[in-house]
Amino acid sequence: MHIVCSDLEGVFVPEIWINVAKKTGIDALKLTTRDIADYDVLMNKRLSILRENGLKLKDIQDVIETMDPLEGAVNFLAWIRERTQIIIVSDTFVQFAGPLMKKLGWPTLFCHSLSVSPDGSVAGYHLRQQNSKQKTVISLKSLNYEIIAIGDSYNDINMLKEAGTGILFTPPENVKNEFPELPVAYNYDELKKVIQPLLTADSI
Amino acid sequence: MHIVCSDLEGVFVPEIWINVAKKTGIDALKLTTRDIADYDVLMNKRLSILRENGLKLKDIQDVIETMDPLEGAVNFLAWIRERTQIIIVSDTFVQFAGPLMKKLGWPTLFCHSLSVSPDGSVAGYHLRQQNSKQKTVISLKSLNYEIIAIGDSYNDINMLKEAGTGILFTPPENVKNEFPELPVAYNYDELKKVIQPLLTADSI
Repeated sequence: MHIVCSDLEGVFVPEIWINVAKKTGIDALKLTTRDIADYDVLMNKRLSILRENGLKLKDIQDVIETMDPLEGAVNFLAWIRERTQIIIVSDTFVQFAGPLMKKLGWPTLFCHSLSVSPDGSVAGYHLRQQNSKQKTVISLKSLNYEIIAIGDSYNDINMLKEAGTGILFTPPENVKNEFPELPVAYNYDELKKVIQPLLTADSI
Repeated sequence: MHIVCSDLEGVFVPEIWINVAKKTGIDALKLTTRDIADYDVLMNKRLSILRENGLKLKDIQDVIETMDPLEGAVNFLAWIRERTQIIIVSDTFVQFAGPLMKKLGWPTLFCHSLSVSPDGSVAGYHLRQQNSKQKTVISLKSLNYEIIAIGDSYNDINMLKEAGTGILFTPPENVKNEFPELPVAYNYDELKKVIQPLLTADSI
């Protein structure tokens, strides 16, 4: 039996922080791990920017509420859920993902969490565990599942390689070139063409 | 962070085999592990009854299609999914569960599978693994999740005891008496009252 483990941002929904930066007009929130390689430094920078601008969790959630899943994502997700199981495995925070998960019909989400002060500001963040994507695949393999993983970038590679089938979805050119062993899909129809043959009557 | 691991039959939907027996009029399909303790013997008996009566997978699925989730189940599931994550952990077969999972809005389901002959008859069954419910909890704990488990009978007890919080839902009197350490809920409101206090702002 199969389970699909898929990244969220870039696969089903747009990049959350980039959209929050655009919609709040705070350019500094566009920083990514390409600009600040240390994720802890980056996240603390983001949280201090939120504080400096007086933005509370509700304000960010209101911005995220205006975002929509990528075109075709809802249908693709329905296609998967009718055929097999899926868990979305993301490095986002459950409080940020909420409005988008609602629009996706509440698929199961494994991610991290924020701690929130009594006044509603974001006090800090908690990674549920390091290397959580790969560990999810290892854990589901221990339940005798065969894993089909979908991701778009470097932070997905450990998950894709741990899976029986790891698929790059609309990856940047450099990621695609660095991992030529991984199949690539550029739209949901191409993803279906990789996934469908794996879901035989005897191994749904 | 929490995940709810819940049994399916008796918690969200009626008992599948009992309803198939009632709706096909084949009394022998009412046999349960109370009548034939060895699950393998019981399942092979059920499959041979299906064959004797010329029932194919599609016929059973058509019967299951007429079943509905328990009253209030869809709302309770929505309540959980807006607050935390849930995985339904069942000893049923994914091909049987399909029509009911659709009515529940396709929550993630961990269960077993049937093998189907080219002519559409049920050729056999495959347990994904032995003691799959408890192993699911162990596996999710390795991902740093705190587990809230819900079940109604003996085959859930290992899962309920492995979880941080294990809740008996409408259990038979003997099960309730045998495990007085487990909290008991007799309806969805009572379940919410046990679950809600666990989902604090810092541990959703």
